[in-house]
Amino acid sequence: MEDKAQIQEAIKAQGEVVRKLKSEKASKDQIDEEVAKLLQLKAQIGGDDGKHQFVLKTAKGTRDYNPKQMAIRERVFSTITGCFKRHGAETIDTPVFELKETLTGKYGEDSKLIYDLKDQGGELLSLRYDLTVPFARYLAMNKITNIKRYHIAKVYRRDNPAMTRGRYREFYQCDFDIAGQYDAMIPDAECLKIVHEILSELDLGDFRIKVNDRRILDGMFAVCGVPDDKFRTICSTVDKLDKMSWEDVRKEMVNEKGLSEEAADQIGEYVSLQGGMELAERLLQDQKMSLSKQACAGLSDIKLLFSYLQLFQATDKVVFDLSLARGLDYYTGIIYEAVLTQACVSTASTDAQNGAEESVSVGSVAGGGRYDGLVGMFDPKGRKVPCVGVSIGIERIFSIMEQKAEASAEKVRTTEVQVMVVSAQKNLLEERLKLVSELWNAGIKAELMYKKNPKLLSQLQHCEESGIPLVAILGEQELKDGVVKLRVVASREEMDISRAALIEEIRRRTSEA
Amino acid sequence: MEDKAQIQEAIKAQGEVVRKLKSEKASKDQIDEEVAKLLQLKAQIGGDDGKHQFVLKTAKGTRDYNPKQMAIRERVFSTITGCFKRHGAETIDTPVFELKETLTGKYGEDSKLIYDLKDQGGELLSLRYDLTVPFARYLAMNKITNIKRYHIAKVYRRDNPAMTRGRYREFYQCDFDIAGQYDAMIPDAECLKIVHEILSELDLGDFRIKVNDRRILDGMFAVCGVPDDKFRTICSTVDKLDKMSWEDVRKEMVNEKGLSEEAADQIGEYVSLQGGMELAERLLQDQKMSLSKQACAGLSDIKLLFSYLQLFQATDKVVFDLSLARGLDYYTGIIYEAVLTQACVSTASTDAQNGAEESVSVGSVAGGGRYDGLVGMFDPKGRKVPCVGVSIGIERIFSIMEQKAEASAEKVRTTEVQVMVVSAQKNLLEERLKLVSELWNAGIKAELMYKKNPKLLSQLQHCEESGIPLVAILGEQELKDGVVKLRVVASREEMDISRAALIEEIRRRTSEA
Repeated sequence: MEDKAQIQEAIKAQGEVVRKLKSEKASKDQIDEEVAKLLQLKAQIGGDDGKHQFVLKTAKGTRDYNPKQMAIRERVFSTITGCFKRHGAETIDTPVFELKETLTGKYGEDSKLIYDLKDQGGELLSLRYDLTVPFARYLAMNKITNIKRYHIAKVYRRDNPAMTRGRYREFYQCDFDIAGQYDAMIPDAECLKIVHEILSELDLGDFRIKVNDRRILDGMFAVCGVPDDKFRTICSTVDKLDKMSWEDVRKEMVNEKGLSEEAADQIGEYVSLQGGMELAERLLQDQKMSLSKQACAGLSDIKLLFSYLQLFQATDKVVFDLSLARGLDYYTGIIYEAVLTQACVSTASTDAQNGAEESVSVGSVAGGGRYDGLVGMFDPKGRKVPCVGVSIGIERIFSIMEQKAEASAEKVRTTEVQVMVVSAQKNLLEERLKLVSELWNAGIKAELMYKKNPKLLSQLQHCEESGIPLVAILGEQELKDGVVKLRVVASREEMDISRAALIEEIRRRTSEA
Repeated sequence: MEDKAQIQEAIKAQGEVVRKLKSEKASKDQIDEEVAKLLQLKAQIGGDDGKHQFVLKTAKGTRDYNPKQMAIRERVFSTITGCFKRHGAETIDTPVFELKETLTGKYGEDSKLIYDLKDQGGELLSLRYDLTVPFARYLAMNKITNIKRYHIAKVYRRDNPAMTRGRYREFYQCDFDIAGQYDAMIPDAECLKIVHEILSELDLGDFRIKVNDRRILDGMFAVCGVPDDKFRTICSTVDKLDKMSWEDVRKEMVNEKGLSEEAADQIGEYVSLQGGMELAERLLQDQKMSLSKQACAGLSDIKLLFSYLQLFQATDKVVFDLSLARGLDYYTGIIYEAVLTQACVSTASTDAQNGAEESVSVGSVAGGGRYDGLVGMFDPKGRKVPCVGVSIGIERIFSIMEQKAEASAEKVRTTEVQVMVVSAQKNLLEERLKLVSELWNAGIKAELMYKKNPKLLSQLQHCEESGIPLVAILGEQELKDGVVKLRVVASREEMDISRAALIEEIRRRTSEA
C-alpha cells in the first residue's frame, strides 16, 4: 500500500506537469509525451474500479495506418515501384533486425539512434537503421558483384519525433541501388533521373535536386586548411546549413570544433556557391581548389554527370551546391538530396493545441550517393563492390498526399467491392449466401451484410457510403422469375437480369467505370 | 593479452563442438548455431591480419529473400490479397513494436517467445507476436466496432527455428478479420470460405480444414471431470495431439498435469471423434455432453456453420475434429486450422549434412477462430467487440512454392524489362542514353549496360539470361537512317523501325506476349 501512495503522489506531480505545459501552450509532441507518462503511472495502480487499465497508445514516434491512409500509401508505393521496375530493378528483402555489430561504425554520430533488442540469451541484435547497410551485408555475404535492386521496407531511428512534419521513429524507405564496377557517372545519372521521374509523377509541386561530391568537400576542407582529423566533424557541421544560418555554422566550427577563423571564412566562401556545369568548370580553374587532386576528380565527375543529365532532360531541377554535405559516414563520391520548394505542410489542423497556425517546410524527400567502400567493410578480404543509390523518404510525401486528399472533395475508396448482395424481404439469408458465393467463385468482388434479416434501406445506405457501384437485389419475385434485380447506385436505375447473364453484366458494368 | 588467450581457448573448444556435431551428422540447424558461436568468438579477436572480422550472417532464425524468392513471394501475396479484396476487406497497418504491456497476458505459455527491445530510456517495447492483438488494440484505441480488414506483415517469435521446414523467427502472417456484432456463424463461415479459396487457388495439393469450438472443448472437460482451474493447461496438452500419440498425451495429462486416469480416458474417447454435421447432431444427443450448456451452444453453432458452408460449396474439405485445441488464450468460440494432406517437403537437397533423405509434413498452413473478449481487454470500460478471423501462414507455403519452382523447368523472371538498348559500335553511349530516356519517359521498361563501349555479344547475352524479350540496336547506319534495329530475342528476327514508330511497336509486341 505504501507503493500505491507513492505512485499516487507521482500521478499528482505528473498531472501538474501536464497542466503547466498546456497552459504554456507547449508543443503537441511534448504534451503527448507527458500525458503518456501520466497514463502509465495511472495504469500501475489501476483504474477507478481497481481493474488494470491499459495505456491505449502506439509506441512513441510510431502510428497506425487506417484504411484511408493505406489507400493513399498504396497509390504512392505503386508510383515508386512502377518507376523502379521501369528501370529494370529486381527486389530483395532482409530481416528487420541485424547482428548489432553489422551496424556498428556505419552511421557516425547518428549511431546513438539505433534501437537495440534486449539480450534474452543468444545473439545481440539491433533494428535496421537504413536499408543500405543490410544491402551491403547481403552483397558481401552472397558474394554478389553486380545487381540493380530496390527495397521498400520500414527502418527504425530513436530520433526526436515530429509527427506533424512527417518525422517518425518507424518509417518507410524506398531504396534503389546499382552495385557493380561500371564506367563513371552512368549509374549515378540514372539514380538522379529516377528521383526526377518519381517527384514529377507524384505531382508534389516544384522540387530541386542538390548534388555535391564527398571528394569535393574533402578537397575543399584540405585547401581551406582544415586538419585531416577534423574533416568528418566539420562535414557534420556544414551538413546543418539547411537548418542553421552561416553565422551559426561558423560559430560551431570555430567555438565548438576549434577550427581557425581563416579556415572557416574560406569554407564560407565556397559553401555559398550554387550552379550547374559551368560552376564545376569554374572551380576546376580555381587557384586554390585546383590544388586538390581529389577535388578535381570530383569536379570532373560533376561535369560528366551534368552532360548525361542533359541527355536525360533532367538538368532543369538539378543544382550543384557546395553546401550539401549529408551526415552518413559511408559516402565516398557523389551525394544528392531532393527538396520540395513549394510544398509547405500546414500543421494547424492537426496540431490545434499550438494555437497559432504554423507552416513548416517538409524538407528533404530523397537522398543518396555513392558508397564504394561499404561492401568491402563486410568482405573478409576487403573486396570492394562500388555502389550508388537513392532513398525516397516516403513519410513526408504521405503527409502532403494526405493533406491533399483531405482538402479535395474526391472520396478515397478503401475497398474495391463491385457489388453488394442484398435482400428485399425477410428469410432470404440462404439465397444471399448462395449468390455471393457464386460471385466470389467467378472472381467478382462482392459482399453482404452479416445479418439474417437486414433492412433494405440500411443495405443500400452501406453502398452509398462505401462507394459500391452496384447492388444485386433478391426478393421472392426475383427468385420465382430466376432473375436478380441489378441496381446502379449512382443513377438509381434498376433492371432485371437473368441469373445466367448476371456475372457478365456485372463485369461489363464495372470494367466500364 | 590474457583476454585474448582465453578467447583462443574458447575458440579451440567451440571448434571441437562443431567437429563433433558434424561427425555425428547432427541437424543443420544445430550445426549452424554452433558455427555461428564459433565465428562470433573468432570475430572478437580479429582475423589473421589483426583486422576486425565481421560475422557475415543474418540473425538466428531469419533469412534474406533473393530476387527469385521475392518473385515467388509476390505471386503468393497477390493471390492472397486478391482473395481478401474479393471479400471486400480494407487494409490497415500497425507498428512492428507495441508497448510491452499491450502483449502481456494474451498468449498463455507462448509469452516467453516474445522479443523485447532493450530499455534505452522511455517506454518498454516488444516486437509483435501476431497481428491479432495489435488489431484488437487498434479497434479499442479508435473505438471501432465494425470493420472487415486484412493485414499482411511480419511477426516475431523467439521459437526454436527449423528453417528447412519453413519455421522462422521472423515470418509473414496474412490476416483477415471481421469485427462486429452480427448473427451467428455468418462471418465465421466466410473466414472458412476464404481459406478454402486461397488454398485451392495456390494449388498446393489436397488440404483439410479442421474445425472445433472452445465451448465444446470446455464443456467436454467439464463433463469428463476436469477441475475448472485445469481447463487451460489440459487444453494445451490436447493441442499436442497433432505431434504426439494419444498415449503420450494421456501420460502428460495424468503424470505431469495431475489429471485422474478416468477423466483422461473419457477425454480420449471424445478427442478421437471426427466428422461433419452429423457428428455435431450425434453429440447433441450424447448423454454426457448434453449436460453442458456450453458444449450444446458450440455444437449448435457447428451445425449452423456446416449449413452455411454447404451453400458456399466448401464442406468437401472441412472436418469437425474434437482433438483440435489451438494454444492461444484469446479464443472464445469456433477455432480452425488448415493442413496440407499431400505436400511433403523433402529436406534432403537443402540439408545435405543430415545424410539421409527426410520427408517432413509442413503441417498447419492457416488457422484462426473467434475471439469475442480480446478487444474488451483493451477498452477502459470493457466494451466488447466480437471478432473472428483467419491467419494464413505464408512461410510454409513459400517453402513448397520454392521447391516447385526449383523442380520445374520454367524460369522465374526477376525483372519486367521489355527492351534492352544496345549499341553495335563504339562511342554510342550518348545515343543509348538518349534512346533509353525516351523509352522511360514513354513508360517502357528498359535498361542499358553501364559501360561506355560494351560488346554487342555481352549485351545480347544479358537479354538471353534475364529473359528480356526485345533488343533495340543502335549503330552508325541506323542513326543515319533515323531507325532502330529491333531484335526479337526468342526468334532472333530483326527489323528496322523508324524512331517515330518505335514506342508503339514495343508496346504492341510486349502486350501480345
